[in-house]
Amino acid sequence: MAKSQAQHTNMDVDYVISYRFAKTDKAAAIANFEKLVEALASVGLQTEVRNGESGSVLLFLRVASDEHLFGEVYRSRVRDWIHGVRAAAPPKETREALEAEPLYEAERLRIIYQLITNPVSEGGAGITPKDGEWENVESLFALHDHAYNKDWIKKWTSSYFLKTEDLDDIRNRLGEKIAFYFAFTQSYFTFLLFPAAFGTVAWLFFGHFSAIYGIVNALWCLVFTEYWKHQEADLGVRWGVRNVSRIEQKRKDFQSMKHITDPVTGETVGFFPSATRLQRQLWQIPFVIVAALLLGTLITTCFGIEVFISEVYGGPLKWLLVFIPTGILTAFMPIITSILMKMATQLTEYENYETQSAYDTSLTQKIFVINFITSYLGIFITAFVYVPFGKNIVPYLDVFSVAVRPFAENEKQLAGPSADWTINPDRLRKQVIYFTVTAQVVNLGMELIVPYLKRRGLSKYKEMQSERAAKNGGGAPDVSANDPPEDAAFLKRVREESELDVYDVTTDLREMVMQFGYLSLFSVVWPLTAVSFVINDWLELRADAIKICVEMQRPTPWRADTIGPWLDSLTFLTWLGSITSSALVYLFSNDGLGPDGHPASIALWALLLSILLSEHAFFFLRWTIRIAISKLDSPGLQQERRERFLVRKQYFDENLSQLKLMPKMADAGGKISRESLEEDAREGSLHQTTPESRFWNRQRGWRETAAVGKDFIERHREESTPVEKKEL
Amino acid sequence: MAKSQAQHTNMDVDYVISYRFAKTDKAAAIANFEKLVEALASVGLQTEVRNGESGSVLLFLRVASDEHLFGEVYRSRVRDWIHGVRAAAPPKETREALEAEPLYEAERLRIIYQLITNPVSEGGAGITPKDGEWENVESLFALHDHAYNKDWIKKWTSSYFLKTEDLDDIRNRLGEKIAFYFAFTQSYFTFLLFPAAFGTVAWLFFGHFSAIYGIVNALWCLVFTEYWKHQEADLGVRWGVRNVSRIEQKRKDFQSMKHITDPVTGETVGFFPSATRLQRQLWQIPFVIVAALLLGTLITTCFGIEVFISEVYGGPLKWLLVFIPTGILTAFMPIITSILMKMATQLTEYENYETQSAYDTSLTQKIFVINFITSYLGIFITAFVYVPFGKNIVPYLDVFSVAVRPFAENEKQLAGPSADWTINPDRLRKQVIYFTVTAQVVNLGMELIVPYLKRRGLSKYKEMQSERAAKNGGGAPDVSANDPPEDAAFLKRVREESELDVYDVTTDLREMVMQFGYLSLFSVVWPLTAVSFVINDWLELRADAIKICVEMQRPTPWRADTIGPWLDSLTFLTWLGSITSSALVYLFSNDGLGPDGHPASIALWALLLSILLSEHAFFFLRWTIRIAISKLDSPGLQQERRERFLVRKQYFDENLSQLKLMPKMADAGGKISRESLEEDAREGSLHQTTPESRFWNRQRGWRETAAVGKDFIERHREESTPVEKKEL
Repeated sequence: MAKSQAQHTNMDVDYVISYRFAKTDKAAAIANFEKLVEALASVGLQTEVRNGESGSVLLFLRVASDEHLFGEVYRSRVRDWIHGVRAAAPPKETREALEAEPLYEAERLRIIYQLITNPVSEGGAGITPKDGEWENVESLFALHDHAYNKDWIKKWTSSYFLKTEDLDDIRNRLGEKIAFYFAFTQSYFTFLLFPAAFGTVAWLFFGHFSAIYGIVNALWCLVFTEYWKHQEADLGVRWGVRNVSRIEQKRKDFQSMKHITDPVTGETVGFFPSATRLQRQLWQIPFVIVAALLLGTLITTCFGIEVFISEVYGGPLKWLLVFIPTGILTAFMPIITSILMKMATQLTEYENYETQSAYDTSLTQKIFVINFITSYLGIFITAFVYVPFGKNIVPYLDVFSVAVRPFAENEKQLAGPSADWTINPDRLRKQVIYFTVTAQVVNLGMELIVPYLKRRGLSKYKEMQSERAAKNGGGAPDVSANDPPEDAAFLKRVREESELDVYDVTTDLREMVMQFGYLSLFSVVWPLTAVSFVINDWLELRADAIKICVEMQRPTPWRADTIGPWLDSLTFLTWLGSITSSALVYLFSNDGLGPDGHPASIALWALLLSILLSEHAFFFLRWTIRIAISKLDSPGLQQERRERFLVRKQYFDENLSQLKLMPKMADAGGKISRESLEEDAREGSLHQTTPESRFWNRQRGWRETAAVGKDFIERHREESTPVEKKEL
Repeated sequence: MAKSQAQHTNMDVDYVISYRFAKTDKAAAIANFEKLVEALASVGLQTEVRNGESGSVLLFLRVASDEHLFGEVYRSRVRDWIHGVRAAAPPKETREALEAEPLYEAERLRIIYQLITNPVSEGGAGITPKDGEWENVESLFALHDHAYNKDWIKKWTSSYFLKTEDLDDIRNRLGEKIAFYFAFTQSYFTFLLFPAAFGTVAWLFFGHFSAIYGIVNALWCLVFTEYWKHQEADLGVRWGVRNVSRIEQKRKDFQSMKHITDPVTGETVGFFPSATRLQRQLWQIPFVIVAALLLGTLITTCFGIEVFISEVYGGPLKWLLVFIPTGILTAFMPIITSILMKMATQLTEYENYETQSAYDTSLTQKIFVINFITSYLGIFITAFVYVPFGKNIVPYLDVFSVAVRPFAENEKQLAGPSADWTINPDRLRKQVIYFTVTAQVVNLGMELIVPYLKRRGLSKYKEMQSERAAKNGGGAPDVSANDPPEDAAFLKRVREESELDVYDVTTDLREMVMQFGYLSLFSVVWPLTAVSFVINDWLELRADAIKICVEMQRPTPWRADTIGPWLDSLTFLTWLGSITSSALVYLFSNDGLGPDGHPASIALWALLLSILLSEHAFFFLRWTIRIAISKLDSPGLQQERRERFLVRKQYFDENLSQLKLMPKMADAGGKISRESLEEDAREGSLHQTTPESRFWNRQRGWRETAAVGKDFIERHREESTPVEKKEL
């Protein structure tokens, strides 16, 4: 019973700090801990400390009273209003404001998180985990809501489609940033159903490399990308976070070169010249070259070995040796990738962005480049190097014989390809199937199973260690020795959660975007691609939910109104798809052998023309689709306009009410002009000063003007009539 | 003296209405006139009527007192604030508001114009010139300020460059819309200096169709287009009109299909389904086809005749006959163009846009298509049809012999080209020179001289007519017969101004954009293009100033924050330039004879590759340049940010002052948590209700937490040390 209760109560804990002191001097650690607790108390957080795993303590935090939160909530809402996230200013009475719009869980947690981490100058406690003074603060996390998590997983795994309400639920619990990932994946999943169905039809009836499939697929990718932008805006309004990305968050690692007076705010701020940053950004060029060279060499080498073994090598153990390149890739790819990732991070740090969003964008671009090469280069080589130039290149592949020389029985088995060697037109399809089915399945498995094994192994290891320690004679007793019995189960759970990894939504998002790339760039090779993705993504959505609930600490809920820089990657992949699809269709339209069955007869001009036409058709269609989608209305956008209209109307009414106190013009027009004219006339007769006043005094009031006008009109007729009569 | 005074006073007149009654029934005209005068008086306008030319009267208007204007000014400023044109709300005291920000002349005139023309429901007089009830209101115009005009022309014609202050001056007098045209032309003129200089160098040293010139020119066009967007924003802030295009003006000719309740405002509004509009917009496709066919046939025919006469025909009068195509073009082009323009207008009307800006954009697009064909098709035919395929086509040109048959002495003179006929590589250059020099000069001349002659002719004609009438016996006396002698000169001037044309700034803007097109698309043919344009535009700027002052009615000052849809045309031409330039360079890089001196050896793949590479380099550069320009700061943008910051700060201060009344969290943290904890503890000992309250009561206040934490940390050390010792 205690256990199930431990699963169901969080003891009102808002956040837990895992404070690791093992590596610090004892006295310093104690002083620092004291300071930490005091800082937290100073912003109204109540604290409890318990023993943690191996050299750490767990500090439990909760907001002492809701009154303490109000200030932060109100400040946050006013900031939102000023940046255009909210249409109207929040009511000044805080109680009232909170009653009108109660906090949802993610908002509450976000605000408490900000209360803890914001600088003291902005009203926070200034605790920055793992950084500077607070290096000992190992992590800061909220506790999972196990009851909710259980329901969530159960509901999702038993339904085919996720409704908007399900996404709302995630937003309420985990914040908008994660909700946007799920919304994107769900939207993508739904959109995939069409190319899955159409792809099956194409696969059955249209033959290989069908131009029709290529066109429909490119169009679909385009519609999806553009429609998602529309959906983003809609969801942003629905969740009240539209324009939230406008609230720029300063990066705390930003290094200013000198201090200047901000011409806008008049405050002294750190300044870093754009020109210097631009110079530093130029390092991105060598970075991309290095990434392309390193990864390109690895992939090309493995590709060469693979072709050599499977198509040239004639010796024994061929069935086994073909796995050599896979082995090399599996061994070296993660190493090179992690080196490049490190370089990317350091380069982005060096570029020294002022805001977090600029930093994220720049880093995402670099990550995209790395992933682009690792994901797609292999297929590019097969499609655009191996097939058109295979005949010329394969003879030189015997350099790779070194890889299998030990296994060969004679030199003949290692000799170049025979004269009747032809390219293997099936290689491309097999490769695409590998990336879109096998790799996706492996990846999904890795995501779920590896952390599970890791967690299991770690707990086993700890168990063994403490058993050994116990055998060694009572030293280092169990950390839970001092736990009050009634809290024991709860504390055990918290200790487990404190050891979990931190969830990073961008990794999952990147995975989806790269998957979309296969569809957009290469699915014309194998139209069933979308079918595989539909199955994979249905599972992925559920697996990610499980991952967040079981294998990760509860993520801090952040706000977002977009999937961010990945949107640019989507747009880029869609565009590139229009080029690769047309090129692939032209090159392989006759079963991988060029338009008339022979690779040699590929005409460069026809290839270029296909690309040129396809790309421009794409640009034209994108323009049309954007216009069409911009005309679409949606409940969210309507709601936003309505809110803004009401606020506007209120301002107008408030401000224009002032005007009504002035004499109404319609009334005044008659009276005043008459009166003032008479006065003018009198004045005029006294002074007869200017030609202007004489000019304006000839007609008094509009009735006189009308009378004179009437006279003119009548006389004109009289004058012209006699002339006409004379002529008759 | 009277005359010079007449030039210098406008008698305080704000606007003049020319009321033409000649075509209406007398009684109706009088009733309508009376209604007009009353409507004007009702909004606080003072009126004077005088006789006008042939069947019209002139109605002079001035605002009776400034008080009447305030309401309209204030309403306009509040509207601006709400739409984000102004950062701060105008002060509620109108006097104060006007003293803080006095009206500039253009603003005053615009507001009076709106007072006259706005619907009665919006507080205006509802006078719509030439429309519906007010069909007799022939025109509504302000009077020229001749003293200022004289200074303006004098200053401009005696200075090489226009400063921003000169543009400010125009903005103050003629409004932002016209000022934006001058700013654009001036900016374009300044930017032209570089390609003029570089073009001269290229012309002298780089040979024909220089790739270097092509690249530099394309880059320059790109930088100019993007930089102009930046300048637009800057000027918009400087002139206080940024975002003014967001204030949507409803089109009065909009026809609603049914009435619905607006989901946003809750008002009943006219509704026209987008789908129906889309269907109607599809007519643009046949429209473009018809335009292309009509104009294309005309241009192609003339081109064929010209080639036939100049390169095939061998008979007499050749020097004269070559002008036949020019004659045909001059005769038919204006007819076809005006038919197409009528079609474009009607089609745009039919598309039934709700807002004026949507209507303008759509119409501008159609005008651009027509102008694109008339301006550039001839050169396109020479470059991409005549040169590459001339050898195959010219033999068939003898169909055009019909045009010169009467002049030929024998059939031989009309026979097809001799076997050694080759294309004339100089034709393209001559054609470009014609369009960029001759046509520009002719056009400039036409703009100034034709209206002058027209005006002269008209006044001569009138003089003669009245002389004849006088001879015929006193009938139809001079309209000025009843003028008071002291106003005579002034009234004569006003009568003259009332006969002038209305200035349309889009025509001038279109001219500049089309000129830019020659530079972007074809200047690689003749690098001196920019030199011609520099001279032409220096004159053009001054000529336009003179035109506005002398040949046109004073334009109603409208606001704008951009040159509008023409910006899209610029972007389009820049992009297209990247394609045509690379194609031209490839096709003609060896003096019009293809890369190796012979047109037959042009390789299609190489042409396509040039285009493909050039276009993608263009896209990449545009992306970079956009990023670079977005980093640029400018006084205008800084000022805008400063204003917005101050407003924001004020709101923040106002709203957050409320917060300070609540107990400060820093103080409260210590006290309240202690107190509340003690209370909780007492309460807890009384009830001992929940595990949660017991959990949180173990440590009272942060000092206890700190003490317990200290204990944990110390004990951990003690525990682990002995183990280590044992191991030693």
